[in-house]
Amino acid sequence: MNNIDTMSVNAIRVLAADAVQKANSGHPGLPLGSAAMAYELWAKHMNHNPANPKWANRDRFILSGGHGSTLLYSLLHLFGYGDLSIEDLAQFRQLDSKTPGHPEYGHTVGVEATTGPLGAGMGMAVGMAMSEAHLAAKFNKDNYKVVDHYTFVLGGDGCMMEGISSEAFSLAGTLGLDKLIVLYDSNKISIEGDTDIAFTEDVKKRFEAFGFQTLVVEDGNNLEEIGKAIEAAKADKTRPSMITVKTKIGFGCPAKEGKASAHGEPLGADNVTALKENLGWPKQDAFYVPEEVYDNYKTIAKSNAKVEEEWNAMFAEYAKAYPEMKELWDTYYDENAAKKLIDDEEFWAFADKPEATRNLSHMVINRIKDILPNFIGGSADLAPSTKTYMNGEGDFSKNDYSGRNLHFGVRELAMAAIGNGMALHGGLRAYVSTFFVFSDYVKPMARLSSLMGVPLTYVLTHDSIGVGEDGPTHEPIEQLAMLRSMPNINVFRPADATETIAAWYHAITSTTAPTALVLTRQNLPQLPGSSKEALKGGYVIDDSKKAVPDAIILASGSEVELGVNAKAELAKEGIDVRVVSIPCMDLFEQQSAEYKEAVLPKAVRARVAVEAATDFGWGKYVGLDGAYVTMKGFGASAPANLLFEKFGFTTENVVATVKGIL
Amino acid sequence: MNNIDTMSVNAIRVLAADAVQKANSGHPGLPLGSAAMAYELWAKHMNHNPANPKWANRDRFILSGGHGSTLLYSLLHLFGYGDLSIEDLAQFRQLDSKTPGHPEYGHTVGVEATTGPLGAGMGMAVGMAMSEAHLAAKFNKDNYKVVDHYTFVLGGDGCMMEGISSEAFSLAGTLGLDKLIVLYDSNKISIEGDTDIAFTEDVKKRFEAFGFQTLVVEDGNNLEEIGKAIEAAKADKTRPSMITVKTKIGFGCPAKEGKASAHGEPLGADNVTALKENLGWPKQDAFYVPEEVYDNYKTIAKSNAKVEEEWNAMFAEYAKAYPEMKELWDTYYDENAAKKLIDDEEFWAFADKPEATRNLSHMVINRIKDILPNFIGGSADLAPSTKTYMNGEGDFSKNDYSGRNLHFGVRELAMAAIGNGMALHGGLRAYVSTFFVFSDYVKPMARLSSLMGVPLTYVLTHDSIGVGEDGPTHEPIEQLAMLRSMPNINVFRPADATETIAAWYHAITSTTAPTALVLTRQNLPQLPGSSKEALKGGYVIDDSKKAVPDAIILASGSEVELGVNAKAELAKEGIDVRVVSIPCMDLFEQQSAEYKEAVLPKAVRARVAVEAATDFGWGKYVGLDGAYVTMKGFGASAPANLLFEKFGFTTENVVATVKGIL
Repeated sequence: MNNIDTMSVNAIRVLAADAVQKANSGHPGLPLGSAAMAYELWAKHMNHNPANPKWANRDRFILSGGHGSTLLYSLLHLFGYGDLSIEDLAQFRQLDSKTPGHPEYGHTVGVEATTGPLGAGMGMAVGMAMSEAHLAAKFNKDNYKVVDHYTFVLGGDGCMMEGISSEAFSLAGTLGLDKLIVLYDSNKISIEGDTDIAFTEDVKKRFEAFGFQTLVVEDGNNLEEIGKAIEAAKADKTRPSMITVKTKIGFGCPAKEGKASAHGEPLGADNVTALKENLGWPKQDAFYVPEEVYDNYKTIAKSNAKVEEEWNAMFAEYAKAYPEMKELWDTYYDENAAKKLIDDEEFWAFADKPEATRNLSHMVINRIKDILPNFIGGSADLAPSTKTYMNGEGDFSKNDYSGRNLHFGVRELAMAAIGNGMALHGGLRAYVSTFFVFSDYVKPMARLSSLMGVPLTYVLTHDSIGVGEDGPTHEPIEQLAMLRSMPNINVFRPADATETIAAWYHAITSTTAPTALVLTRQNLPQLPGSSKEALKGGYVIDDSKKAVPDAIILASGSEVELGVNAKAELAKEGIDVRVVSIPCMDLFEQQSAEYKEAVLPKAVRARVAVEAATDFGWGKYVGLDGAYVTMKGFGASAPANLLFEKFGFTTENVVATVKGIL
Repeated sequence: MNNIDTMSVNAIRVLAADAVQKANSGHPGLPLGSAAMAYELWAKHMNHNPANPKWANRDRFILSGGHGSTLLYSLLHLFGYGDLSIEDLAQFRQLDSKTPGHPEYGHTVGVEATTGPLGAGMGMAVGMAMSEAHLAAKFNKDNYKVVDHYTFVLGGDGCMMEGISSEAFSLAGTLGLDKLIVLYDSNKISIEGDTDIAFTEDVKKRFEAFGFQTLVVEDGNNLEEIGKAIEAAKADKTRPSMITVKTKIGFGCPAKEGKASAHGEPLGADNVTALKENLGWPKQDAFYVPEEVYDNYKTIAKSNAKVEEEWNAMFAEYAKAYPEMKELWDTYYDENAAKKLIDDEEFWAFADKPEATRNLSHMVINRIKDILPNFIGGSADLAPSTKTYMNGEGDFSKNDYSGRNLHFGVRELAMAAIGNGMALHGGLRAYVSTFFVFSDYVKPMARLSSLMGVPLTYVLTHDSIGVGEDGPTHEPIEQLAMLRSMPNINVFRPADATETIAAWYHAITSTTAPTALVLTRQNLPQLPGSSKEALKGGYVIDDSKKAVPDAIILASGSEVELGVNAKAELAKEGIDVRVVSIPCMDLFEQQSAEYKEAVLPKAVRARVAVEAATDFGWGKYVGLDGAYVTMKGFGASAPANLLFEKFGFTTENVVATVKGIL
């Protein structure tokens, strides 16, 4: 290893240690331990152009062990990404800085994914590799491999312990994603001590079981060995690869090296000094990097820029040779392609007969697939039930990456992470699907969708006690509250065809937030009052005669029908009720105060919320004087119609509840 | 295989097929495929006494593939458990029957765990095996192995795909839980078709990587081979075992065997007839079982009863030889042992200085460990941060199962399932712990805690933007809403030492519901008004002068202090405010209408909720006229004090908000 390489590796270490020390908070252990593999990868094996971080064909790199963010920030600074300055590094973990505690997508240029919750990056990397494989299958032509890049992910023991990594990599092996390369920072240390206390498994063997090529680098500071392993990984054209890189946590810091205490706290000023001395660093000044090191990084960055130039030239030729493909490419990368559908009558058409919203969703999915060629998705082994199959679009498999139907297996959490990865990659609009009750499994990764603002769509069917015989383990109660309470996700629970189409319209036109579609197993009638107003999240679906009604019934999904029926009954008794459909509480909240007042006049205090779910979250509309027809506990196993009756979801009970508060 | 065994196996198949057909709903595939292994296990290798399903030393059996519930119900009926009758089987999946769609703990005698969400049973089985190992280490004496039983778990491809099984079994291998035996019903079929579409991994090899003994039975109908494998599994005294049993889904039904369609729908009347003909079943009548088959099961049940008799005799001798151990045993199995603490001054004592509630919790944990010898728990690799270590109580490890500190590794979901399994096993009172934001990972299994009503305690620290520099991936926003909205769990967010002790008191005295403790990273002051009233979930912590205050401030945890400070400021301006602390919304909801009215008089409409979390769920107390000081989106990365300021959690802002609605 020549001196400039050593210096360049150590620059990462020094910057990471200084940043954590300055912040007096952070995780120096991972950056110190894995600086060498990261440098070798970024400097010599990864196609990336710091001058254009959004180059479509760049190799992707995800730091799954997001706590080691200073590793990434140091690399981004040294390579000159987005003018990330020394001052930015010195502002590590400070208010409004570009260098938050964990890497945040959309916040810092060059960060491909938000990571921190362990294992998440592993799943997202698989999603990116799937996107690459699909786009390559769709776009590449002889001599024009316009989509041809690797996805690298780096994580440690924690990422490997998390179940999501087993889920994601089992699928990656099945799919033979040969351009996925996992760097396992194996340092044998966890927060509670040596990994032997909880993790003696043979990780390499597990990956062999998944169908990976497995490689081992015994000395995590040996750049040559690391480089050879990466090239061997690239050379395998049938399997993904996992490289175990044996490292020492906190490498270079004599007092901390190999210890759990190196993980998540500053080294201490004395130890930072000792680190620099030990590494033979020329100066002790904080954030000092010799010019020759910067020059080295600059040289590499320039040569990387050339790689993009070559690609640009190839792409220009490709566009000439295949103008129809260039046009298709632009469609794939047009986030707003679906907006034209707002007035498309065919898109909004439906048959006026009772239908489950999951079936209506299936109808819409099969419309969208013809409109958006980059629409892709699938289910965690429930497509026949969640009705998410795109007819005639083939299955994404090892033998054919052009299929648009994804089979995730029974792996809900990895599915959501993979969906995030696909959305982050660019070029595709993805959806994922499972039973609504299993949004519980999905939640940690749905949170990342929301935090990153990626427009992934969650199709969640079997949305209430309407599940029926499968019983309480399969009947959502609190899942609506769980998702509605999460920032930056729009949760639709449509009441009929129009609202289902509106929900999908919202989903495929969103550019800044994920959407969840919560759909029934059972048939629902088409409601005369439903309309595109559903896009506002809440609207009057069946109005009172009087401007100020005697009472307001609020409902969503399958219970809107109950509200409409109760209103009709109450009218017979001279009680004038307004029915408000709330297909998406999140969007309704975002409407103007005027609109909300028009729909829900404050003067009307007799308000009843009707929803086959917990009442949790409805109080802001129901107030102190209203009432609820909601679930008070878990569901039960019986035919659905009997359950609705048992739990009070009847016209009679809604009528009685309204009268009870008048 | 002799005729009566064949008949007994087929009785399971016939009953399962009939039950699903009668219900016109259910999953016949698993019971038909795995009837032979289940029979062989229950009839010849499992110590269980149908006459006493709660015998402490019984072998445990969990059907992780809970959708195959008719397998379990048929076994329970045939062995004579709890008078589960043919009529009960005929009522499969009907309202209020003993035979719901998925097995429910506490609902049907002999069901050891609620299953259905795939993989859950795998994790719970590991927990049961850990309980057995710990209790054995604590109680067994030479010649008196009073705790000495196996834990069997049966699941299919779906359970193996779920990440939780990798998490749980990686830990089981690390811990060398030799009395854990996994039966893998390998039929190569999933709902979307052949498992090859998503699951080509070498499962056996994965288990080898985890450190399991792996065994294979090529013919899932060969009782002798199954029996041999089970005995070989028992014979390994250093490792858990996994037996791959190759089966055909829907075995015996010519039109369905080996097909995905056998999984989750009735076979159809004609196919049930064909099944019975194909199996040579003597009669076509629904639910017909020949007397000789019943006799066979009865004979086995009787001989099993003898095994318990022998154990009872041994235990009686043991009690004589070691009276102090018998006394200890009774303490372990006394669910109400902690109730005496309600007036124990030492238990409720604390120092009057600012302290983080996670540290206070650590203090209480270390009191409880001395009071409840069966108190056991640990963290998902975060004990130094969540402060859950019991000092001087040793670590539970392969070399020493008597340790009371559990190391789960970075495996939150499996941790919760394992905690459930430990609680279900009996004899121990368990807690599990992680960062509050990672309750997202925990949620699916916390739901099972709630559904089963097991008193597992969740210690969830770093409860808000008080996390600070780690940033939004680590800062809970919607997690309080997520857990509060779930039925049958009590979520405490204590404001100081008294409330923290109260929360723990509730947790260790609960017998019917899990408890979540949501604790701060940062210091909080001791509040003069806090009291044991916290056990009511909500109470007046700082009262107004007037009986009807001008306004009410509601808060929990770290924000109660803000409420108290704002009240003092407002008093200077002549505004008379009441401060209500809501440490546990769930318990407050359960109080009488009178109590709730006394705390929150309906006449007072000026109400402000203050909580460093989403406002979601506070509306029921705040009403249409109140206001919120809450989080409107995700957090950020910065020192905690700056974040509280940035997001409006200041006395000034609370004061202004109160004045804004007066």
